[in-house]
Amino acid sequence: MDAARAEALLDFLALADRLKTVERRGRVPLPGGSTRRENSAEHCWTLALIALLLHREVAREIDLARALSMIAVHDLVEIEAGDTYAYDPAACATQAEREAAAAGVVFGALPPDLGARLRALWEEFEAGESAEARFAMGCDRMQGFLQNVLSDGQGWKEHGVRRADTRPRMDPARAVDPAFERLIGALYARAADGGMLPE
Amino acid sequence: MDAARAEALLDFLALADRLKTVERRGRVPLPGGSTRRENSAEHCWTLALIALLLHREVAREIDLARALSMIAVHDLVEIEAGDTYAYDPAACATQAEREAAAAGVVFGALPPDLGARLRALWEEFEAGESAEARFAMGCDRMQGFLQNVLSDGQGWKEHGVRRADTRPRMDPARAVDPAFERLIGALYARAADGGMLPE
Repeated sequence: MDAARAEALLDFLALADRLKTVERRGRVPLPGGSTRRENSAEHCWTLALIALLLHREVAREIDLARALSMIAVHDLVEIEAGDTYAYDPAACATQAEREAAAAGVVFGALPPDLGARLRALWEEFEAGESAEARFAMGCDRMQGFLQNVLSDGQGWKEHGVRRADTRPRMDPARAVDPAFERLIGALYARAADGGMLPE
Repeated sequence: MDAARAEALLDFLALADRLKTVERRGRVPLPGGSTRRENSAEHCWTLALIALLLHREVAREIDLARALSMIAVHDLVEIEAGDTYAYDPAACATQAEREAAAAGVVFGALPPDLGARLRALWEEFEAGESAEARFAMGCDRMQGFLQNVLSDGQGWKEHGVRRADTRPRMDPARAVDPAFERLIGALYARAADGGMLPE
């Protein structure tokens, strides 16, 4: 690694650090009973942990390195585009365009070979076609739902989200594999038992 | 996956979520110029990104799935043991004992097969002998140093850390590979240029 490449990598890591300041709607329970909004960087760590726990629980063989690599980069465009709330139709309508522009900025900040490699991982995640991309999508959506359950449905309540609103997002995640169906079914049961997600 | 296993995994993920409330001494720059302490979950995400960027930059072949898996679990014991500041000798003296006890609680919360698998990854990281463990150690220590550079050395200044204090921790990271030597050398230069780390 030459000096210029080292400086470029450090500059990129300084940019990537901003993912820690992108706030999601889901909330993190704090000691003492309050909550705060989750940020996208810690969300990505939870996805990695879920992927590590589940990659041998599913029927299709998962290339764990590829799944974890996709997970590490899948939200980097939010540094420029911000987080898009799944239950905000206006924001979702412009999401693809905003994120494509952001990808040029974020992945363009890397040396070209690394930028192309990380961009390809992000595109694979977005396309949602490979076994690893579908697996990562299932982990991503399960995690968002889980975070709401962990925080007594506060994120849902703030935005008036009802059970039916979650189905277009969660049904594809349940369909990834029977293990996802089981886990997400159990999360819906916890949400119902806790009165977090009205019918 | 049967119902009991699903419930056990969800309970574990609820426990693991607490890593987002474990604060490190390094600080995250915020929009507007202030900073806040970094938490261990977002630290783990940054390590994953660093590992993804560097695994092909080093001479030894790295099994990326194993490195990223180790990175995802390496700080889980902090849920019970708390973060141990690298420049606090009293805390470091009791760290191994506290973390071994914590490992029993944290990995013991998983179904036995998964608990054993995650514990083995943590133990491999702690032993620091495999190529992937040494690579992950290098990423971990580089990230801690980087976080201080990103926040104008605030964490160091608060605790009176000088350049020589960092060497027992950073010299083994520099020795992992010439790429680490290059990157960490560049970080020391940035710290020196910014007056962040007195001689």
